[in-house]
Amino acid sequence: MHEILIEEKILAKNGEIASENRSFFKERKIFAVNIVSSPGAGKTAIIEKTVPLIKDKVNLAVIEGDLATDLDARRLLKFGIPVKQITTGKACHLDAHNISHILPWVLEQKGVSLLIIENVGNMVCPAEYDLGESIRVVVMSVAEGDDKPLKYPAIFSSSDALLLNKIDLLGHTDFDIDKAKENALKINPYLKILETSCRTGEGINEWCAFLEGEMTGAEVKA
Amino acid sequence: MHEILIEEKILAKNGEIASENRSFFKERKIFAVNIVSSPGAGKTAIIEKTVPLIKDKVNLAVIEGDLATDLDARRLLKFGIPVKQITTGKACHLDAHNISHILPWVLEQKGVSLLIIENVGNMVCPAEYDLGESIRVVVMSVAEGDDKPLKYPAIFSSSDALLLNKIDLLGHTDFDIDKAKENALKINPYLKILETSCRTGEGINEWCAFLEGEMTGAEVKA
Repeated sequence: MHEILIEEKILAKNGEIASENRSFFKERKIFAVNIVSSPGAGKTAIIEKTVPLIKDKVNLAVIEGDLATDLDARRLLKFGIPVKQITTGKACHLDAHNISHILPWVLEQKGVSLLIIENVGNMVCPAEYDLGESIRVVVMSVAEGDDKPLKYPAIFSSSDALLLNKIDLLGHTDFDIDKAKENALKINPYLKILETSCRTGEGINEWCAFLEGEMTGAEVKA
Repeated sequence: MHEILIEEKILAKNGEIASENRSFFKERKIFAVNIVSSPGAGKTAIIEKTVPLIKDKVNLAVIEGDLATDLDARRLLKFGIPVKQITTGKACHLDAHNISHILPWVLEQKGVSLLIIENVGNMVCPAEYDLGESIRVVVMSVAEGDDKPLKYPAIFSSSDALLLNKIDLLGHTDFDIDKAKENALKINPYLKILETSCRTGEGINEWCAFLEGEMTGAEVKA
């Protein structure tokens, strides 16, 4: 019981800071995307495919969250975009406080309109921690099994879009894509579902178009 | 700082209960295996392949840990073995307390000598929580990327064996298996590494032989 109260307090505090981050982004017209997934579902690869397609149109920066190493940040730095690594040590998710500390760095990059935040690879804990993002995108590899939305409901119910990634592996697995979509929509009927492959490039244009559409939508609403 | 102290207290308490579980298992000659991985790496499939090969030789029971649903437990019940589902709700890992509550049920199954515990799919949090198991086995799908041991070091350093699973997908990914092994052994030079595929059956006999060897080794030591 005591543990639950502590968790509630931590989450309440996180929610407060997330609101501040959200106001910060809104005032400066920064669209923030929180990308979440299991380890190895392809978050970094998606970003690697996205950057060349949009970097001439939008001013972007990336925050990389990892327990250890700066391997992912180094993969992205080669595109000549600003990348900041957060190493969480044992912490299994990014939290709003991590992000609030990076906001001065975001401002230093001048005119950032899209901030991509790659969370720690974990399908459980990041679901509970609002970062103040504009949208949350969950990536799921078709190698993971079509039952995942039912087994990890919080991450699917809290996301705006689902990328069914590594779609090129579909024929080599027992993954039932219709079942996966049905399961995902059962948990969250508002989920926008896209199919992507970073190996073949399938669906990457559609994903970038979706992202740009969301950014425009956010501007119109603002 | 306050949060870190709370975490230390929780882990210390978990460690105490894990020691009690370990004594319980040792006194009753129960070999307990804690299987950990990302969501969808193939933990349940590995157990499905293991059970038919060993259930005539050893008396086994399975504990299934999931956030939600009893889908995995139902997959295993069809083998006619005792299976207990633990649904953790929001908790991102099994802990020693969860297991201690199940011990009376384990005794009721009469003469269990192998207890397989499938943890919640998560490569971060389960690393910190000793359940009192005899060995810990981490499963990693080759679809996840060969850099995972470096990026999620705690789960690899705390495990006794690594199953590189879905090895049938190897030719369809950019996964470098030698690099993956090198990375895993860099984190934990004592890790026994096996390659498995639940689709083709490759490596399952070797895995079962390893498991039986570990059980015999534990008996000899006892």
